[in-house]
Amino acid sequence: MERILLKLQYDGTNYSGFQIQKDKKSIQGEIQNALKTLFKQEIEIFGCSRTDAGVSAYEYYAHFDIETKIPANKICFALNEILPNDIKVLSSCKVSDNFHARFDVKNKTYVYSVYVSQHIMPLLDRYAVRIDKFPQSQLMQKASAKLIGTHDFSSFRTQDPSKKETNNVRKINFIKFQQKDNVINFFINGDGFLYNMVRIIVGTLIEVGYGKKSVQDIENLLISKDRTKAGKTMQAKGLKLYSVNLKSNNM
Amino acid sequence: MERILLKLQYDGTNYSGFQIQKDKKSIQGEIQNALKTLFKQEIEIFGCSRTDAGVSAYEYYAHFDIETKIPANKICFALNEILPNDIKVLSSCKVSDNFHARFDVKNKTYVYSVYVSQHIMPLLDRYAVRIDKFPQSQLMQKASAKLIGTHDFSSFRTQDPSKKETNNVRKINFIKFQQKDNVINFFINGDGFLYNMVRIIVGTLIEVGYGKKSVQDIENLLISKDRTKAGKTMQAKGLKLYSVNLKSNNM
Repeated sequence: MERILLKLQYDGTNYSGFQIQKDKKSIQGEIQNALKTLFKQEIEIFGCSRTDAGVSAYEYYAHFDIETKIPANKICFALNEILPNDIKVLSSCKVSDNFHARFDVKNKTYVYSVYVSQHIMPLLDRYAVRIDKFPQSQLMQKASAKLIGTHDFSSFRTQDPSKKETNNVRKINFIKFQQKDNVINFFINGDGFLYNMVRIIVGTLIEVGYGKKSVQDIENLLISKDRTKAGKTMQAKGLKLYSVNLKSNNM
Repeated sequence: MERILLKLQYDGTNYSGFQIQKDKKSIQGEIQNALKTLFKQEIEIFGCSRTDAGVSAYEYYAHFDIETKIPANKICFALNEILPNDIKVLSSCKVSDNFHARFDVKNKTYVYSVYVSQHIMPLLDRYAVRIDKFPQSQLMQKASAKLIGTHDFSSFRTQDPSKKETNNVRKINFIKFQQKDNVINFFINGDGFLYNMVRIIVGTLIEVGYGKKSVQDIENLLISKDRTKAGKTMQAKGLKLYSVNLKSNNM
């Protein structure tokens, strides 16, 4: 048996997320179908992260085990013949048997994109969310600083009880903004994220940028552990997994 | 009667081009339908340019005449309520009665995007075309210089006899390349373009960048007026109308 690591890119627009779900189109489901076609057997893949419905990934890692004569670095070509155009394998390689795509993640960077416009802009709107005025980036910067480090992010997670975690403490390493013309990209790197965490952080930062919440409110928010006091959950389509830092990366 | 100018943006992926065609979905058709819904009458719009099937526009202008009490700068909001999400009006204004969206174009810039990868990259592939190795930009630059200015571009137009023009002389003002990571954008500005001209120019420049054609070949191509000697017509999805210079622009 060999353990194979896949580096993927996908457009999540038309999928219910990475994770396989009954009667829904998922990234995992499409890849497992392609693996079944290629290797004539059921193969389970293990992904580096959940991504929600409508969320895309510039870079995503998943591993699986197989006994095959196809060289590891050629598996990507064989799979891409089968996969749809919105999910592709950018590379494939052999990794050690104790490597795990989920547990060997050091940290991940998400990018959330918004654009400022009075009207929907069709060429931006697929991967970015429209807002109608510019938030003040200085205020957002100050608020972001309060979120850096290890905190209980209970105020920044979904209220959906089915997504409950045993521990809501996470570590954020950086939050950066990049503005080009009317597009603002929020880059958020952390060791791990709660369900909807990035989308709620961005929603909250924009409220700070609009002056609806103060920088002090962010500190209080972390203490309160009260989701209702944070900003809104931004739409999924603006969110993309941007890069993943693995403990050992042969790619 | 007032003459109204619309500034549009559209994702042309699912359309047969700007121009209305029987039994096909077109940008013009969608806008005229929206105008009919809004103003309860048939209205013809005049666009600044043909764009082919699958070609998008960051900026596109069209005008029409109407008698209405809706302020000109509010028409965009009313139309956007009706239009699909892949065609939107970014602004609307009143222009003088002798303004014409097509005849008052000074020049236009198209951008053609390619990305270099061994595999389809789902998050780039909607608006860019995959090529499998980097073309040499120095060679492309030299070849581009030969195309600048006023030439007979018969070698760089479709062979489709139904698209024949009386005059194949056009003026190209500039060709610029911009590379970021594995994406190369070709910006081409000209006073006017023949059918498929930008897509054939890009296909030819890439062949020069690969060393398959020489810079001298470009000079010979212009003289030969022989389409079969130029490079291939690149796919439509890589092409976007980027900006339009109007003789008088109130927007």
